[in-house]
Amino acid sequence: MTYCLGMLLDEGLVMVADTRTNAGVDNVSSYRKLHCLAEGPDREIFAATSGNLSASQTALERFAERDGPLLRADSMFAAAGLVGEALREANRAVIEAMAPATMKGTSCLLLGGRVGNGPPRLFQIYQEGNFIECKRDAPFLQIGETKYGRPILDRVIRRSTPLPAAVKTALLSFDSAMRSNLSVARPLDLVVMPADAAEPSQRRRIEADDAYFDALSARWSQALNEATLAMPDPDFMRPDRPARIVAQLHR
Amino acid sequence: MTYCLGMLLDEGLVMVADTRTNAGVDNVSSYRKLHCLAEGPDREIFAATSGNLSASQTALERFAERDGPLLRADSMFAAAGLVGEALREANRAVIEAMAPATMKGTSCLLLGGRVGNGPPRLFQIYQEGNFIECKRDAPFLQIGETKYGRPILDRVIRRSTPLPAAVKTALLSFDSAMRSNLSVARPLDLVVMPADAAEPSQRRRIEADDAYFDALSARWSQALNEATLAMPDPDFMRPDRPARIVAQLHR
Repeated sequence: MTYCLGMLLDEGLVMVADTRTNAGVDNVSSYRKLHCLAEGPDREIFAATSGNLSASQTALERFAERDGPLLRADSMFAAAGLVGEALREANRAVIEAMAPATMKGTSCLLLGGRVGNGPPRLFQIYQEGNFIECKRDAPFLQIGETKYGRPILDRVIRRSTPLPAAVKTALLSFDSAMRSNLSVARPLDLVVMPADAAEPSQRRRIEADDAYFDALSARWSQALNEATLAMPDPDFMRPDRPARIVAQLHR
Repeated sequence: MTYCLGMLLDEGLVMVADTRTNAGVDNVSSYRKLHCLAEGPDREIFAATSGNLSASQTALERFAERDGPLLRADSMFAAAGLVGEALREANRAVIEAMAPATMKGTSCLLLGGRVGNGPPRLFQIYQEGNFIECKRDAPFLQIGETKYGRPILDRVIRRSTPLPAAVKTALLSFDSAMRSNLSVARPLDLVVMPADAAEPSQRRRIEADDAYFDALSARWSQALNEATLAMPDPDFMRPDRPARIVAQLHR
C-alpha cells in the first residue's frame, strides 16, 4: 500500500508520499515514490506514485533522462498527457504479464508542478492514463490508502490555507494513515512549491526518527483527547439525569 | 455501504449503526441495521449488520420469533455460534442466487449483549459464520465503512473510557464517516448497556435533524481546526527562517 497526497492552494503546491512498499506483510521495503520528473529554469514537475512498483518504475523510466520529453512539454496539461500515456502502456504490459496470477498490477499517480511562470498545477492520472485536474472547489487529491487520513483534510484544508498550516495538516493526515495501516510508513517525501515562481520550492525527507514528526504525532493525540473531553456529553448519557427519565428511554 | 461500531469497555457495551442502504447512488433508502435479537429478564442481545440487506434480513428472521433459539442460548458465545450458523446459510443462499451477476452479496455483523448477570460481550461474525470476540487489548470492532471513523477511535478509546465519553467518541467517528462517504447517513441507532446488569440499557435513535449531533459535528470541526492551528509549524516552513537556510534545503 501507499499514501500520496497533493494539495493545490492559493499559496502553492504541496505533495507528500510515504516510502513503504510491500508484497505481503512479510516482504516490506522502503522505496521513494515522490519523484522529480523534470527540472529546469522554467519548470519543476513531480510525480507521486501508488500501486504496482514495477508499473510505476517502468512508466517513469522514460522521463528519467536529462533530455526527456517533459522538458519540452509546453504546459502542465501537456505533461499530464505524456505521463498518462506512459502510465497506460506500463500498466497494460504489467497486466498482460500478471493476468495469469489474477493479481492487480496497475499503478496510478499524482502529477504536480509548474511549467513557465504560471501557478503550479496538480493532476491525478488514473491507471488507464486519463486524468483529472485539481480545481478550486476541492483543493486536494489523494491516492492509495486515502481514507484514514481524509477526515482531517475535509475539515481543515481550504484553498486559502497557508502553506505552513497545509504542510502540518498533511503530516497529521499521514500520521492517521500510518497509525491505522502498517503498510504506510515513514520516511515521507515532501515537496512544497510556492505559488510565486520566484520563490524556490523545497524538497524534504521526513525520516523515521524525525523529532518534529514524533512531537506532532504525540501532541495531536493529546489534542484529540482533550478536544473529545471538551465536547458536551449527550443529554441521555448525563449521570445527573433522573432515573425516571432514563427508565423512559429504555423501551 | 454501512458503518457499524461496537465498543466493549469496563463500564459497558456501546453499539452504533447507521441506517443508510443503497443499490447504487440513485437508489438510497433508510433501513434499521441495529436489531434486538433476544430480550428477556436474563438477557439482551443486539446485532448490527453490514453488507447485503437480503442476506442479513434472512439470517436474522429466525431470531425474530418471541420463542426464538437465542432465548435458550446459555451464553453469548453460544448465541454467536447460532447467529454465525444462520448468517453462513443466508450468505450461501444469496451467493448462489447472485453468482451469475458476479455481485458480492454477503453480509457480516456485530453481535453484542448479555446473557445472565455476566458482563456484556461483543463479537464480530464473518460472512462464513465464524467469529471473533472483542477482547481487552482492542476495545472496539467495526464493520462496513470503517476507515474514515477509525483515527479518532485509535487515539481516544481505551477499555477504561467512561460510557458518556465513549458514546460521544462513537458519534464523532460516525460524523467523520458520514462527512466523507455519502453512503453512511443518519438516522443512527444506538445501544448502551452498562456493565452492571442491574442498570437498564438504553436504545436511542439519533435522527437526521438531531440538534445535539449537529452541534457536536460543528464544534468538532472547530476544535480540529483550532488544534491544527495550535500545533507548531515545521521548522522548514517558518517564515522567519533565514533565506540562506531555505536555499540550502532546495537541492
